[in-house]
Amino acid sequence: MGRQYIKAHSKNIQYMANIQFRYPLTRSLAILFLFFSIQATAQKTMPGDVVIIASKILHENRTVYTHYPKPDSSNINKRFPVLYLMDGESHFDMLSQYADYLGRWDVKVIPQMIVVGITNTKRTRDLTPTVSIIDYFGKPDTSATSWMKPSGGNEEFLQFIHEELIPYIDTNYKTQAYKILAGHSFGGIASINCLLTHPAMFDAYIAISPSFWWDREYVLKLADRTLQKGSALNKTLFYSDASEGISDSSTFHTNLLKFDSLVSVKKIKGLVHAYKYYPAETHMTEPVSAYYDALRFIFKDWKEN
Amino acid sequence: MGRQYIKAHSKNIQYMANIQFRYPLTRSLAILFLFFSIQATAQKTMPGDVVIIASKILHENRTVYTHYPKPDSSNINKRFPVLYLMDGESHFDMLSQYADYLGRWDVKVIPQMIVVGITNTKRTRDLTPTVSIIDYFGKPDTSATSWMKPSGGNEEFLQFIHEELIPYIDTNYKTQAYKILAGHSFGGIASINCLLTHPAMFDAYIAISPSFWWDREYVLKLADRTLQKGSALNKTLFYSDASEGISDSSTFHTNLLKFDSLVSVKKIKGLVHAYKYYPAETHMTEPVSAYYDALRFIFKDWKEN
Repeated sequence: MGRQYIKAHSKNIQYMANIQFRYPLTRSLAILFLFFSIQATAQKTMPGDVVIIASKILHENRTVYTHYPKPDSSNINKRFPVLYLMDGESHFDMLSQYADYLGRWDVKVIPQMIVVGITNTKRTRDLTPTVSIIDYFGKPDTSATSWMKPSGGNEEFLQFIHEELIPYIDTNYKTQAYKILAGHSFGGIASINCLLTHPAMFDAYIAISPSFWWDREYVLKLADRTLQKGSALNKTLFYSDASEGISDSSTFHTNLLKFDSLVSVKKIKGLVHAYKYYPAETHMTEPVSAYYDALRFIFKDWKEN
Repeated sequence: MGRQYIKAHSKNIQYMANIQFRYPLTRSLAILFLFFSIQATAQKTMPGDVVIIASKILHENRTVYTHYPKPDSSNINKRFPVLYLMDGESHFDMLSQYADYLGRWDVKVIPQMIVVGITNTKRTRDLTPTVSIIDYFGKPDTSATSWMKPSGGNEEFLQFIHEELIPYIDTNYKTQAYKILAGHSFGGIASINCLLTHPAMFDAYIAISPSFWWDREYVLKLADRTLQKGSALNKTLFYSDASEGISDSSTFHTNLLKFDSLVSVKKIKGLVHAYKYYPAETHMTEPVSAYYDALRFIFKDWKEN
């Protein structure tokens, strides 16, 4: 019976420890909290922070979620790979939960991991590689209030990740060098754009339904120009699409097939890649299966030391 | 740029609101927290509680996690179906995240939901329907310290859920009548045992790799006795298994095929059932895919009113 009390205690201690650490003023109140909460309800927490970074590169504050493995007292110096995720507000909880569950001692098919979810301010600006007003259907949208304005800021966004975010995470968390970049839709082309233009930044890249349609297949053409047949690129790349027909079009699937064919034909040495098509899923349900499969793929040969 | 401040604010407000609600003493300090945290890090929270219920039926305190949709100010009286999950410590975060993501306004393939994760005290006792010392390989384990002791307490555990847990949840959360029971492994036979012995308790039942091997296939035989050919049972049932061969045996798969055949042959009116086999998954990775598929199956005809 004592076990439940201990459990409730430890949950609250974790909860309070977090407050105490950040706000020493509340230390005395924390003891009160502990006392009152044993037979009541407390809040369930997960190990993680909301970090606000004042970006000099982007000239704005950026909110980033972090999630990390529960501290292991038997191995406090253990360090972890880091997954950097775009669209943090959409898929951070999903990836955090996958990282936790799949890295658990009794599941252990991937390493325990730190997940960093970058939330959006101006999503189209940050995740698209070029300035464009050409919409999904190939039509220009010249209105001043077009949802595509501003666009083309992906290079600055990647610089923010490289110069400001990664150093912050490496300084404040127990990181290994191994890093993954993951994105969906516009985040998918941002991920592939990073692989093509700054391949050294990450070890593995995930692109769930990348919006190759952007700017008349700019990223597809860039891939064709950039990836040199028979060259070497020691990276892991997972890409996928789903049932995403809008009207009679299915641009996503057509473009993913083109990209997959291109990657295969180039025979890049060291590039471990996988393409998965999810015909039973939609653009928005696909990440549930695809992020899981991507993690399993990236770590398919992983074994704990 | 102001948006990030607002975002940080609202996160902290949610965080603090929770404390304020439970511990009014800290109200003045909460304002301090808000002030300090804008350029710092705060903790990411999810809407949920750790509830401790002093069970008269089980004569012990039971720790239960709850997760619920973020309050929607435009519809504060909205009520939600409830998913009751066994092995809360293993799969609560997974189900909570699925419920959140799949019920989101821009995904919306299932209703928003409350998730209740029951954590274990004596797992084998609570989740097995009979007293047995026969192990997975059919051998009796007569040792006083056998991991199978105590067993056979599933009836009392279901009474705890029926008499104590469900009333607590219905009193304290915005519940609809629609309820799901979900379990994995021993939780899988507990789920099916509940369907067979107390079908009125839940509307839908999920059994991920139910341990039919328990007590010489007791639950399989019970199903055969209890389900009357051509009778009516307006329930939804999802069951599954994975690659779970231990030594040369694959008892899970054989038994699931038997159960699926039995359920099909009985032609129960109103029983909407699905069986899914995951040969690429193991006993422990299977829940990731199977819980997702189970939720999609249960709500395949769901449309928001």
